[in-house]
Amino acid sequence: MGRVTVRRKVTTIDVATSSAATRPDTLTVEEPLELRVGGSPLTVTMRTPGHDIELVHGFLLSEGLIRTADDVALARYCEGAVVSGETGFDENTYNVIDVTLAPGVTPPAASATRSFLTSSSCGVCGKASIEQLRAQSAYDVRADATEFAAKVVVELPDALRAEQRSFDKTGGLHAAGLFTADGGLLVAREDVGRHNAVDKVVGWALLNGRLPGAGCVLVVSGRASFELTQKSIMAGIPCLAAVSAPSSLAVECADDAGMTLLGFVRDSRLNVYAGGHRITTT
Amino acid sequence: MGRVTVRRKVTTIDVATSSAATRPDTLTVEEPLELRVGGSPLTVTMRTPGHDIELVHGFLLSEGLIRTADDVALARYCEGAVVSGETGFDENTYNVIDVTLAPGVTPPAASATRSFLTSSSCGVCGKASIEQLRAQSAYDVRADATEFAAKVVVELPDALRAEQRSFDKTGGLHAAGLFTADGGLLVAREDVGRHNAVDKVVGWALLNGRLPGAGCVLVVSGRASFELTQKSIMAGIPCLAAVSAPSSLAVECADDAGMTLLGFVRDSRLNVYAGGHRITTT
Repeated sequence: MGRVTVRRKVTTIDVATSSAATRPDTLTVEEPLELRVGGSPLTVTMRTPGHDIELVHGFLLSEGLIRTADDVALARYCEGAVVSGETGFDENTYNVIDVTLAPGVTPPAASATRSFLTSSSCGVCGKASIEQLRAQSAYDVRADATEFAAKVVVELPDALRAEQRSFDKTGGLHAAGLFTADGGLLVAREDVGRHNAVDKVVGWALLNGRLPGAGCVLVVSGRASFELTQKSIMAGIPCLAAVSAPSSLAVECADDAGMTLLGFVRDSRLNVYAGGHRITTT
Repeated sequence: MGRVTVRRKVTTIDVATSSAATRPDTLTVEEPLELRVGGSPLTVTMRTPGHDIELVHGFLLSEGLIRTADDVALARYCEGAVVSGETGFDENTYNVIDVTLAPGVTPPAASATRSFLTSSSCGVCGKASIEQLRAQSAYDVRADATEFAAKVVVELPDALRAEQRSFDKTGGLHAAGLFTADGGLLVAREDVGRHNAVDKVVGWALLNGRLPGAGCVLVVSGRASFELTQKSIMAGIPCLAAVSAPSSLAVECADDAGMTLLGFVRDSRLNVYAGGHRITTT
């Protein structure tokens, strides 16, 4: 449980020097996490173990199934759960979490169209038709009048990386971090799946009374896809800053919601794709 | 239809020089593709338009729903399909594909546990419990005795990138390519989602009589996750070479299946994580 990395023997072959060397290598752990709600399987996500309770809260909020931390009465690892079959997956009790919703919270429908099925690199799973792809946020990021100074924002990816360097030795982990407008780090999380890293951050914020994420900027180590934009909106975070490129749909989505979307935030530069009114340059 | 990139206005702010410039930028297109089988919605994937028919074939094969190209009687865009709702998604007819399976091919079950729901960056979606996460391949990659010369394999990412450079101006696209053991390129595909790029390659191979992919190596531009390893196995491809890191589960999965998994294939070096008996250094 909670293993972020694992050691494994690897052989490096160098064609230039015609040499081969075998040594222990550090790999990012990827394991399935099954989320059950009221005992019924809802989704499986391929994630890096650790901060699973936050992950589950962030996922449920992103999907619109809960709106406050109080909507979850109990979230716990299924101690008796054994994952069986001929699959060879680790048969431990830390890859299944059961969530009990509070009285009055509508449980997810059992139909196929309401299944939420995710993987190590996906985030908008669980929508069986295109119409379902946008969920309704409890928060209106458009109304958030926070301004972000470009000179502060361009420093944030390095600040996130400094957090990450302390425990990512694998080159295989995505990072997400929540910062205040003056550049203060609230929380940073890593995962083999970029959407899981964001769910962990959002779950942390939910559990620590920091939602909506008004006045905050969410920084992600990779690209900005539709699903990450969507997760920011669902968490009421008015600004998403990505180190790499946004997709077309991420930009459309941010534009529609009145959110600020920044890309290629690196080397003291950033690109403004949506919501430029929040970015100050003086 | 088929738009890989789109132009959009972007403002670049340079903090070092205190300058801001607005210009047209090129974004990777990300749009939902709804896959229907026999008229019933099966999955939505966030993909880059283009090669959608290959994508659908590769997806169905990867999920074990079809085994040969003949298992699909017809795959076509729903010409009358209008994607409605208040979502703001483009209402065109090129984001819904309906597949008619051949007589005798078992359609996917309608239950929640058989829904296949994917996104721009996921690939093992559609499994509502952990036991379902491994599908059964029609092919045995363990029996494939092909040898791959390290000096050939280390050149393949550059060969793939040369294909990619010709049309990726966005920095936001994943690439996958299928090569023969002597380094010949069979096909290269790009997508905003890495698993979609692989599905397009596998679909191409299926439609062109190249499955199983015996004697071939699948090269991917990013990391090697569980789902990509799984897709290689389902397509009978004995070797997966990734430019970045593999996850722990990818290595376990490759090891179990007798497949060769290479990572960090760059700068005339490569790391052998599984199936090293196929890699020659002389």
